Amino acid sequence: MRAEGRAAPESRPAPARRDAPLRALLRAPVGERIDLGAFDPRATPGGPAGKAAGLAATAALAEPLTALQERLYAAATAGDRRRVLLVLQGMDTSGKGGTVKHVIGLFNPAGCRIRSFKAPTPEEHEHPFLWRIKKALPVAGEIGIFDRSHYEDVLVARVRELVSRSQLGRRYAQINRFEQSLADDGVTLVKVFLHIGYEEQRERLLERLDNPDKHWKFSPGDIEDRGLWPEYQHAYELALQRCSTGAAPWYVVPADRKWYRNWAVTKLLLEHLEELDPRYPEARFDVAESRRLLLET
Amino acid sequence: MRAEGRAAPESRPAPARRDAPLRALLRAPVGERIDLGAFDPRATPGGPAGKAAGLAATAALAEPLTALQERLYAAATAGDRRRVLLVLQGMDTSGKGGTVKHVIGLFNPAGCRIRSFKAPTPEEHEHPFLWRIKKALPVAGEIGIFDRSHYEDVLVARVRELVSRSQLGRRYAQINRFEQSLADDGVTLVKVFLHIGYEEQRERLLERLDNPDKHWKFSPGDIEDRGLWPEYQHAYELALQRCSTGAAPWYVVPADRKWYRNWAVTKLLLEHLEELDPRYPEARFDVAESRRLLLET
Repeated sequence: MRAEGRAAPESRPAPARRDAPLRALLRAPVGERIDLGAFDPRATPGGPAGKAAGLAATAALAEPLTALQERLYAAATAGDRRRVLLVLQGMDTSGKGGTVKHVIGLFNPAGCRIRSFKAPTPEEHEHPFLWRIKKALPVAGEIGIFDRSHYEDVLVARVRELVSRSQLGRRYAQINRFEQSLADDGVTLVKVFLHIGYEEQRERLLERLDNPDKHWKFSPGDIEDRGLWPEYQHAYELALQRCSTGAAPWYVVPADRKWYRNWAVTKLLLEHLEELDPRYPEARFDVAESRRLLLET
Repeated sequence: MRAEGRAAPESRPAPARRDAPLRALLRAPVGERIDLGAFDPRATPGGPAGKAAGLAATAALAEPLTALQERLYAAATAGDRRRVLLVLQGMDTSGKGGTVKHVIGLFNPAGCRIRSFKAPTPEEHEHPFLWRIKKALPVAGEIGIFDRSHYEDVLVARVRELVSRSQLGRRYAQINRFEQSLADDGVTLVKVFLHIGYEEQRERLLERLDNPDKHWKFSPGDIEDRGLWPEYQHAYELALQRCSTGAAPWYVVPADRKWYRNWAVTKLLLEHLEELDPRYPEARFDVAESRRLLLET
């Protein structure tokens, strides 16, 4: 029952319309080939006019966002199983961590379940690739946030040839079945690819090298991965093509401009929460009687 | 190596001094009997002069707080095992949830591990009472937050007589050994008792009853617990007396004024982080060489 389901299918973001939901603009087409080179990472589709306006617009979304979050959380106390899962993917320095800080930082932290996935531990390696993912899922009423995710297992796994091509093919299918089962169980998936440009990444890596307080964020492996830029872009294109489904679409968020990235992810979450429209549950006790008893104390 | 360890022992908060660390003011005495009736829940020891000043002062702490949090997180990537654990306890409506929202909401959510403890599940019941606690501890570099904690097992367990008196006695000792072992392993414990008054609780419960959007926060059991107010206060006094230790002191935060409560918990966390003084790690790679390689790409 997605709102954009009523619109005609589109293979490329439509021109910004003031009232067009952002997710219709940014959603990757389902089952179609994607050329990331055609998406400008500096673009600001549907966004506010410039940085100052963007920061103000994002701040203004905090209140409706946390109001909806509280309703989602409250509804869960009465059995509503719905929850949201934000999946953040993108090249090094694309701003996954910054998005958690600035966008998820707008929410009530009590209702957020954040998990950052690194290279698998030896224990994780002994299990199917979805094992660690399933353990980190949000429960009813929560907003789950994955900084990297099961998609690493079709991205780095492809680029670094960690598994065979036939295994990769099976993984796309496994991911789609997994995400469909999540959607069936009440999970609203918001999968976001933070799309930065090759030049912008160089600037951001340089910034890390030139500031000793940021050295901990850098590893020489980052330059190695950068050397595989075309391979990674292609792996992303395939992941977006194979795993953007009706139940769990991908959104391509241009991420060279941090203010736009933060605004866009915030807005995407807001639109999904608005559609969920969670409600405060009815009292399951006698309010008048409780009031009387309380006043006697 | 606690700063206040150099001060003379004190059995009651000293009068506010401009430069006195807040934790010296609010710390419960170690091993001494406490009379909570002697602590005014509307007091604002060491605090800003009034609500407007309090809100501004709290907002002003956000920047140094997140700067220190980032350093703690960064240090952990280089092997520093230190982490912080904030334990929040207090009667219903004392503001544990509000503290998480407003104080922990100032932090970068990526470095926070929040856990809210409800009545034990059947599985939790089959394990020792510290089992579920140990599973929820923060890892190196994180700020852990417990909304209720293992203290419920000497509070509600005492008031509701869920275990024998001799078992209770053993639990205090178990808690002290457990917390000492955490401290030995690099955990800075900040145990906060949010102290509200009996009248204030009535007002807050009434507010929940009179606002349908807050009914989900209310349960008739809250009035039952309120009927046991003196027993709970006594159970808290015993927990503070038996478990305020040098390694893991309790802080009594007057909580009738929400702005003071938020400011005080924020300030306590800041003071502990300042003492930890975590440092960004040195680069463990050749910065100049990485820079050269990067510029070639």
